Amino acid sequence: MQTYTVVNENIIKDLVAIVGNKYVLTEKDRLVLYGQDEGAERKAYRLPEAVVLPATTEEVAAVMQMAVKYHIAVIPRGAGTGLEGGAVANKYGGIILSTERMNAVLEINDECLYARVEAGVITADLQRMAAAKGLLYAGDPCSGDSCFIGGNAATNAGGNRAVKYGTTRDQVYAVKMVTPKGEIVELGGRLKKSSTGYALEKVVIGAEGTLGIITEVTVRLVPLPPVSVHILSVFSSAQEALSLVTVLPKNRIETTCLEFMDNESIRAVERFTGERQVASEKGNYMIIQIDCRNEDEADAICMQVDEICRTCGATDVFMADADKIWRARKIFSEASGAEGPVAMEDFVVPPDCIAELLQEVQNIGERTGLCFRGVSHAGDGNIHLDILRNGLTDAEWERRLAEYEKEAYTAVYAKGGKISGEHGIGTVRKGFMLTYTDPVELELMRALKKAWDPDLILNPGKIFDIDG
Amino acid sequence: MQTYTVVNENIIKDLVAIVGNKYVLTEKDRLVLYGQDEGAERKAYRLPEAVVLPATTEEVAAVMQMAVKYHIAVIPRGAGTGLEGGAVANKYGGIILSTERMNAVLEINDECLYARVEAGVITADLQRMAAAKGLLYAGDPCSGDSCFIGGNAATNAGGNRAVKYGTTRDQVYAVKMVTPKGEIVELGGRLKKSSTGYALEKVVIGAEGTLGIITEVTVRLVPLPPVSVHILSVFSSAQEALSLVTVLPKNRIETTCLEFMDNESIRAVERFTGERQVASEKGNYMIIQIDCRNEDEADAICMQVDEICRTCGATDVFMADADKIWRARKIFSEASGAEGPVAMEDFVVPPDCIAELLQEVQNIGERTGLCFRGVSHAGDGNIHLDILRNGLTDAEWERRLAEYEKEAYTAVYAKGGKISGEHGIGTVRKGFMLTYTDPVELELMRALKKAWDPDLILNPGKIFDIDG
Repeated sequence: MQTYTVVNENIIKDLVAIVGNKYVLTEKDRLVLYGQDEGAERKAYRLPEAVVLPATTEEVAAVMQMAVKYHIAVIPRGAGTGLEGGAVANKYGGIILSTERMNAVLEINDECLYARVEAGVITADLQRMAAAKGLLYAGDPCSGDSCFIGGNAATNAGGNRAVKYGTTRDQVYAVKMVTPKGEIVELGGRLKKSSTGYALEKVVIGAEGTLGIITEVTVRLVPLPPVSVHILSVFSSAQEALSLVTVLPKNRIETTCLEFMDNESIRAVERFTGERQVASEKGNYMIIQIDCRNEDEADAICMQVDEICRTCGATDVFMADADKIWRARKIFSEASGAEGPVAMEDFVVPPDCIAELLQEVQNIGERTGLCFRGVSHAGDGNIHLDILRNGLTDAEWERRLAEYEKEAYTAVYAKGGKISGEHGIGTVRKGFMLTYTDPVELELMRALKKAWDPDLILNPGKIFDIDG
Repeated sequence: MQTYTVVNENIIKDLVAIVGNKYVLTEKDRLVLYGQDEGAERKAYRLPEAVVLPATTEEVAAVMQMAVKYHIAVIPRGAGTGLEGGAVANKYGGIILSTERMNAVLEINDECLYARVEAGVITADLQRMAAAKGLLYAGDPCSGDSCFIGGNAATNAGGNRAVKYGTTRDQVYAVKMVTPKGEIVELGGRLKKSSTGYALEKVVIGAEGTLGIITEVTVRLVPLPPVSVHILSVFSSAQEALSLVTVLPKNRIETTCLEFMDNESIRAVERFTGERQVASEKGNYMIIQIDCRNEDEADAICMQVDEICRTCGATDVFMADADKIWRARKIFSEASGAEGPVAMEDFVVPPDCIAELLQEVQNIGERTGLCFRGVSHAGDGNIHLDILRNGLTDAEWERRLAEYEKEAYTAVYAKGGKISGEHGIGTVRKGFMLTYTDPVELELMRALKKAWDPDLILNPGKIFDIDG
């Protein structure tokens, strides 16, 4: 295992010289806030040795150069809303570099349909500022009210509109980043196409801060759709609900969002918010958002979708109260976690396999004695299960969960799926990454990491360990 | 400069042992066919020392392993329709590995909307086979009738539908490839999203065969649009025509194709085909394709587009004869080249800058004494200029062209543009790549190349030289 220099007074002095005294944190009560994320599984996390809050890309670069000089690990961090320990210190220790002060919206251009923002801008703030100019920033993770756009890029965040607009990678024209050696570079460009050398920005996005520290992104904006319809379709079985995932595209219905909530998740939200949800006794929801050119088109599509849903077995199809239904969908994680410890999964499979996968993981749950609630970005094949601990002892919970996950991942990979649709691998899923990734592919990833970061300074031990 | 082993009898024997006697070419008259591409600038090209035609991914891997063992350069090649010398031997010599025998369409799945094809499948064949099942393969390079899907992936080919559907990278779910060390790996997956480690397939696509030999691709298919309208809008000035590039999206008109032809290019096509084109005396064309859900929507959109075009200064707006107008657009290169030598440019800029760029390169042409014809995938900011040699001596042509390109690239980069929108860098544009690429970015590219291909076996000296 590689080792690093422990942060000492001289190093703190150097950090202070770069960012100022106020922006180097060393007091334990402040470090604690950076020693965790929003995930439940924190055994491998450590407190950072210091936290540094640079204000500019140049300061980020200076910190990285210093870290290379002293051989200290640097962990880039956005808002800390991750779930897999990508933005916390691990066994390698080191300093956390938070982008929270780099929160300027530099430009929203409604002539040319793009925005330039610093990495620490909150996603929902960008959405609101774009909307004020009649534009949509299409990235829409459920944590949008608190997460940073830089973190969205680092994890290739998905969210609710990925069915139509793709993931964060598809929104990003260009990134400004600091390399593991402390150089500043802009990758990509505000271009619709390019065949001018390697598309490095594509691989930096989703690399969870292991290949560079993203300090600024240029994203595409699109005109806000004139009319959006929100349909809530209720099914007595999850399988019927999920049949829409293939039936709608085959009928040329282009959904912007296609979100599934199983009955357990609806009930958990109902208990948490105290707000009554329709058909919550036994319904499973499919929430369908479709963007239309005008009201006439919206009417025609609603009629068509209503018919399709009923053919697929829907017991009710409503024009949804958009605010209410999206509030319910987005608060799921919080509501579910409030009732006791859970383990959250982030499986992704080809969308046409998702109904089958849900059935299989249900069977695995029965065999291993574990229950879960499930929500799903169904349209893109991504399923989140909150597996309930239900008062099990530590040992029993770990034993059952390990058995469950082993079987579930095997099922996921048998369908051509992968571990993570949008949360990333971080520290927590590294073992699964090692088990389920083709060794040749993993070796190519490691080779890239070593080539760009030979001293393994930047976010070491995330996604994979370099040597095992 | 790195050196390589010259192919000798023993090496030929080893190649024959892998693919069979019939599929190792060494006769000069056959090598000649692989010593060129469809570009005009071939000074740096060499004849390959041999051509090998493997039938399977396993054979490709065996050839690569042999090449590593003997230290011979391997140049992967598709149909040879490239323009920049990406798939020909250069000063490093070596053997060409052609994917032409790997031409099976393995699966077209109309339930799950994808296709799996070998690298040597002709793009138009895939389009036709998909269409027979009611599906669209959205990649659509102008050379589609002869180019291979593997070459499309290697160059991240664009084409006519990139405005709506993106480039080849956006069509590809997964690639099977042989690494520079001769290992077989599948990158990506048939997934709508993934945050499971580095998205290596994204950077292999567009790497012009320098990072791996793509032997199979899995691509997305979409339902064929129910109705497509083709509108030909004629303008007396290029600037007015190009104003549509920003005006249409702002009016929420989503075009599938938005193609510009200047008057000189229309006339060249008319002379070549003998077929009369409308308003060819002085018109500039914008060809607009829009996909619609039904005839009613098509009617409404046509009326709206007609009005927008006329507001932008169109002298005529026709419902186009789709076959005729697309034939004219796609035959441009051939028609233009038939009249004498040209140098073709592939500039890409933000779409909102394209009108201004065209004006600037026209001014540069006047200053440097060079004329051109221009067509453009205008909607995505990609402009192809055929600069006419017009009987200049070698020395004078080279002098003027160098001056022209220097000024033009400077203008392109000043707008945030790049050298190549879709043709790639290959051998021909390497010097510009070196001049105009940020040295930090170039170093990151080289580091990746060296990490994956430490012996520089695979397509050396394409995109960049490793050391200069």
